[in-house]
Amino acid sequence: MLTLSQLAGLVGGSVPPRDENLEITGLAGLSEAQSGEVSFFGHPRYAAELKATQATAVLVPRDFDGVTNAVCIEVDNPSAAFTAVTEKFLPPPEIPQPGIHPSAVVHEEAEVAADACVRENAVIMAGAVIGARSVVSAGSSVGRGASLGEDCLLHSHVVVQDACVLGDRVILHSGVVVGSDGFGYETKNGRHHKIPQSGLVVIENDVEIGANTTIDRARFGRTVIGEGTKIDNLVMIAHNVVIGRHCIICAQVGISGSTTVEDHVVLAGQAGIVGHIKIGQGSIVGAQSGVSNDLAPKSIVVGSPPRPIGEWKRSVIRVDRLASLYSRVKKLEAPPSAD
Amino acid sequence: MLTLSQLAGLVGGSVPPRDENLEITGLAGLSEAQSGEVSFFGHPRYAAELKATQATAVLVPRDFDGVTNAVCIEVDNPSAAFTAVTEKFLPPPEIPQPGIHPSAVVHEEAEVAADACVRENAVIMAGAVIGARSVVSAGSSVGRGASLGEDCLLHSHVVVQDACVLGDRVILHSGVVVGSDGFGYETKNGRHHKIPQSGLVVIENDVEIGANTTIDRARFGRTVIGEGTKIDNLVMIAHNVVIGRHCIICAQVGISGSTTVEDHVVLAGQAGIVGHIKIGQGSIVGAQSGVSNDLAPKSIVVGSPPRPIGEWKRSVIRVDRLASLYSRVKKLEAPPSAD
Amino acid sequence: MLTLSQLAGLVGGSVPPRDENLEITGLAGLSEAQSGEVSFFGHPRYAAELKATQATAVLVPRDFDGVTNAVCIEVDNPSAAFTAVTEKFLPPPEIPQPGIHPSAVVHEEAEVAADACVRENAVIMAGAVIGARSVVSAGSSVGRGASLGEDCLLHSHVVVQDACVLGDRVILHSGVVVGSDGFGYETKNGRHHKIPQSGLVVIENDVEIGANTTIDRARFGRTVIGEGTKIDNLVMIAHNVVIGRHCIICAQVGISGSTTVEDHVVLAGQAGIVGHIKIGQGSIVGAQSGVSNDLAPKSIVVGSPPRPIGEWKRSVIRVDRLASLYSRVKKLEAPPSAD
Repeated sequence: MLTLSQLAGLVGGSVPPRDENLEITGLAGLSEAQSGEVSFFGHPRYAAELKATQATAVLVPRDFDGVTNAVCIEVDNPSAAFTAVTEKFLPPPEIPQPGIHPSAVVHEEAEVAADACVRENAVIMAGAVIGARSVVSAGSSVGRGASLGEDCLLHSHVVVQDACVLGDRVILHSGVVVGSDGFGYETKNGRHHKIPQSGLVVIENDVEIGANTTIDRARFGRTVIGEGTKIDNLVMIAHNVVIGRHCIICAQVGISGSTTVEDHVVLAGQAGIVGHIKIGQGSIVGAQSGVSNDLAPKSIVVGSPPRPIGEWKRSVIRVDRLASLYSRVKKLEAPPSAD
Repeated sequence: MLTLSQLAGLVGGSVPPRDENLEITGLAGLSEAQSGEVSFFGHPRYAAELKATQATAVLVPRDFDGVTNAVCIEVDNPSAAFTAVTEKFLPPPEIPQPGIHPSAVVHEEAEVAADACVRENAVIMAGAVIGARSVVSAGSSVGRGASLGEDCLLHSHVVVQDACVLGDRVILHSGVVVGSDGFGYETKNGRHHKIPQSGLVVIENDVEIGANTTIDRARFGRTVIGEGTKIDNLVMIAHNVVIGRHCIICAQVGISGSTTVEDHVVLAGQAGIVGHIKIGQGSIVGAQSGVSNDLAPKSIVVGSPPRPIGEWKRSVIRVDRLASLYSRVKKLEAPPSAD
Repeated sequence: MLTLSQLAGLVGGSVPPRDENLEITGLAGLSEAQSGEVSFFGHPRYAAELKATQATAVLVPRDFDGVTNAVCIEVDNPSAAFTAVTEKFLPPPEIPQPGIHPSAVVHEEAEVAADACVRENAVIMAGAVIGARSVVSAGSSVGRGASLGEDCLLHSHVVVQDACVLGDRVILHSGVVVGSDGFGYETKNGRHHKIPQSGLVVIENDVEIGANTTIDRARFGRTVIGEGTKIDNLVMIAHNVVIGRHCIICAQVGISGSTTVEDHVVLAGQAGIVGHIKIGQGSIVGAQSGVSNDLAPKSIVVGSPPRPIGEWKRSVIRVDRLASLYSRVKKLEAPPSAD
């Protein structure tokens, strides 16, 4: 429980003196919040929810002029401020106790740091290394000679295959597969013969990877996910792809083999990138786009084939208006009227 | 083994007296069926297979006038009738014995109903609740404080993360992940900082979710899958999404954060829905469509951006005919001939 | 370590006499290779990397005329030759020891060949059959009555559900689900009632399936993956689909129920195929295409709806040029100038 005054102090905002002693006991979204709770107004599209909210207080932007019955606390960034409040009210996620659960299978030639945690039914194979304070959750497996740095978190049912290398503070969500074979065949007489996939996957520091995403090992050398890059669920990263630092790869994106994605790139949901190309630094690729050629740095494109976003929008309008264009041409073709 | 007369009785159909004592020993699709088997005619596109079938009998619609050598049994709904026959001929799926397999790891603070079933290498964490007659299959894990209602079925290798709540008769297929973290970051100076994902996932009664689908927990509050909704394989449901009751979400659909899908919506395969919008009740979104704005109730749309289906079809035709439009304009531009 | 002369002999190439005794100690891609290593030039797009490479030798095509400081070894197929070199330099992947790991759970009514390998925490259910030299890796499960032929490799965390049948030399990567229920419901009064999925999945010899791909069991009869077909990651194969022999199905493709894909078909990444159609033998479907009607054999199509690739490219150009078409029509509509 906090008073509004304490809450305002926590987020660098202020409240009218008459409201300073109101008590806040929890938090919720605008629509779900009840009296006694705090919420936040993060986007103008929620103006109706703001107006109707039952929350006692709402975190709003500095230059706020919306309508609400709640006490408004102006802050620089309502979403970030709300995160701070969340951390105050909610219990932190459980930190599992260090140690190896009796049901886990740890090979005698694996190295597990004394303060690491290997949970129920996890499997650590020969030569694997689990760094300090790293957690391998229930049912996950770490392959032969693979290594995790410090403070990594593998959620339940993650697979890290043989020889793959994770840096520090890497988070892998449930169902992630790191180091499956790349999809490579030589075709002779209509039959496909497997090309050995002898490389590995390197995941640098501070990377987070979403549930059921798959990252294939390189044919030789390394598939790389650069420092600080965040990848959402059900993404496919093919063999020998190199992703730079601090990228955002949204759900269900697919990146084909040997493509390079430079630093600070954003790939929106369900986009597809062909193999052997380069996406230039700082580029943004729209949802469902299909990219089959290099993109210059700072490109902002949408569509398949991709076009600069302004051009793409104008093209959509031109296609929508085609019916009238056909009519205009028909009229031009008509013989001059008789009068 | 059934006589045709018995079979007809089972499905509410009738057979000519001369065929009443023919014996049916099994069932199959039109193409695979052999003499002595029954099949069904569920769609006009299978007219050729119907004509060529070796089946002894075929379930057909009431007003059937197709060509076949098989004995025709007219019924209201051949597909539903065939399901009834299937249940007669095939053994029911095994119902696992209640109890906890010795290889399972059940925390002493978990509550497992006496007639529930926890199978090989499953993991039930502290505070989890497994309701009456629910089955947690091999290698699945149920997180800290998560709960399953009655008669749930988790197939092998399902993950239900901490604190998530399942109603009754929920079916989760292999590889489903419920409660992975939402994909949320605050970006400062080009680096992405994780926003805690402190909410949970609620899955209401009679929901079924397909293999390797992922459903992220809410940033705060709840991600919700409404009663009776059916979700296919490899679908991505982001944090704070609220899906209504009795929806159909086909394979590889992606729904971004905080979007609301109202009751009785159908999303066809590989469709993508952006975040923070509302898909109105009873809407149908075509395969591979990309929806980035609210849809009114009962919308039927296709494409990206989506258009009403009739308009979309006409637009496809207009684009297909552009070559001739260019020619027509070129002809109009030509100087009048000299004669 | 090999001399260049030995290396050339291995791949059927030749080197100038003065370079015959140079020593090769390893291999790498053009960009990463160091002095003493061999690389290969597999595609003209890597001309710049070739020019700058530090490799001592490079495998190049027979009629090579590029620029490089490395010793060039001309071969018929540089990529295939490099694979041969890879196998010479890299240790072969570990072949797990035959036998059943003590942590595995093998039902007393299962049959496991004496020289098969069942690894950590794997589960083999009643009536399952594991053929000679097949490997079931950590945490995988094989359902009741399912069978694996000889020399199969199930990587970690694979699920083969009840009654499914695998041939010989089948490779399933981590997270693959074979035999989940098909997505089938009868809808009455707005509620969806599950149709029993009583069939199975048959995977023929020499099939390889990528990480987290899902293959649903048939409603009745069989879902089939034909001999020698290769499927990439995160692909969805619905119930009663029949895929022919020697097909290539790229990542994130979705194929809806009861569709037939004939032999030697290639489906590029993220393509979607509706149900109940036939993709003719030898067809190629472009990335992200959406196919909703039968394709004749040897079709090569792109787009949604799909068009022959040449027509599709011309259509893209026509749409790109629409702005000028609108201008031309506007000009035609303008009243004649006064002069």
